[in-house]
Amino acid sequence: MNKTHIFGMHAVQAALDYSAKKIHHAWIDGQRQDHKLKKLIDELASFKITIEKTDRKKLDKMADGKNHQGIVIAIEMPTAKTEDQLKKAVSELETSALFLILDQVQDPHNLGACLRTADAVGVNGIIITKDNATGITPTVCKVASGAAETMPVYQVTNLARTIRWLKEQHIWVMGTSGYAQQSVFEADLNIPIALVMGKEATGMRALTEKQCDFLVNIPMTGTVESLNVSVAAGVMMYEAYRQRIADS
Amino acid sequence: MNKTHIFGMHAVQAALDYSAKKIHHAWIDGQRQDHKLKKLIDELASFKITIEKTDRKKLDKMADGKNHQGIVIAIEMPTAKTEDQLKKAVSELETSALFLILDQVQDPHNLGACLRTADAVGVNGIIITKDNATGITPTVCKVASGAAETMPVYQVTNLARTIRWLKEQHIWVMGTSGYAQQSVFEADLNIPIALVMGKEATGMRALTEKQCDFLVNIPMTGTVESLNVSVAAGVMMYEAYRQRIADS
Repeated sequence: MNKTHIFGMHAVQAALDYSAKKIHHAWIDGQRQDHKLKKLIDELASFKITIEKTDRKKLDKMADGKNHQGIVIAIEMPTAKTEDQLKKAVSELETSALFLILDQVQDPHNLGACLRTADAVGVNGIIITKDNATGITPTVCKVASGAAETMPVYQVTNLARTIRWLKEQHIWVMGTSGYAQQSVFEADLNIPIALVMGKEATGMRALTEKQCDFLVNIPMTGTVESLNVSVAAGVMMYEAYRQRIADS
Repeated sequence: MNKTHIFGMHAVQAALDYSAKKIHHAWIDGQRQDHKLKKLIDELASFKITIEKTDRKKLDKMADGKNHQGIVIAIEMPTAKTEDQLKKAVSELETSALFLILDQVQDPHNLGACLRTADAVGVNGIIITKDNATGITPTVCKVASGAAETMPVYQVTNLARTIRWLKEQHIWVMGTSGYAQQSVFEADLNIPIALVMGKEATGMRALTEKQCDFLVNIPMTGTVESLNVSVAAGVMMYEAYRQRIADS
């Protein structure tokens, strides 16, 4: 848990829904008079959170020049871990590795739902990309229903490099692709493994796919082209879980 | 596909994202001047949709007194089927039945994602409740990525009665519950079956649970109490699929 600044009305509302108790302080633009902002301020006040009126310039600075819509809060939230922390965690693993890699997944609802399933299945951690991807936001924490606090999320800058490193540690990297010949139900998932899911709509990047040890598909018999990312990740993680308990 | 009226800015935006081509006509409140409405009107116009200025009273009537925010559209959308159509479909089944029942699922994203998975797995249809549940909305269609057009959705007024009827047709009704002794991976899903998923947060209603032939759990080893509904439904549907192809 680290104290971090969150801004914008939507994110602040998500933070209130996630956990009002973790909000320490709010700064608002004293010049703004809009109805939606007033509603948020009333809700913050009902949780006895200190609300400080300030000017737009200070908020601009706190929000790093981004669109804060007149409100910034300080909140305690889980933070992403580093590549070094991933290396330490892998070196200390006592069970057969099971990681989930999300290659540029952008929708916080998908990361949140993946965290929830990963917690349920006992995944060792989720690896996410720094660029073009959602990080740990209040919406992610809210959707994760507590799993953002328990499931380590490792944020890496160069996913291809991380995958190469995982392979050097004898962790098999299995990508999902509609073009794969083998189905996930035919593959052996009871080995040290990292499952890679691609982003919404376009799937894994070519560079990521190239790094994978092997590719599997999730069989689809109908007309739609792909599953929702968090559903596909859920099917993969539970298939790994099922094979592991069946063999144990 | 039936022509239906959709209203409110959020729903109209979802309809545009889902399929602007299916929108036939738009009526707007000529008195309203707000920025968001203007943005929607511009987008409708860019698709050459006829936009008719009218007064609030007419819109009130079209929206059945509900909050239309100054905009109503006519759109062709898939519509839910009836209980009689379900009976006909069951009588005509040529393969071992596989239905998904959603007991008061309210989030359109969950219904949309379930439709997508149901299409992929070859489910015979999704049965939803009329009360306290989302119907087929533009958001559902958008999230379903085409599956709302291919997967039959049966909307029933009395789910307990429908479940009793399914059982009379020798379809086993399997509910999911955290309290169940047996895991879904231990259960035999290669029988004519209807899988029941409960609503977000609270699960199946007691009355629904009582009607089920048997209950199974999705094993969870972590700290969170439940999975996202569409992820849980995905795991259940794919386990049924996996067992059926393994036995075939």
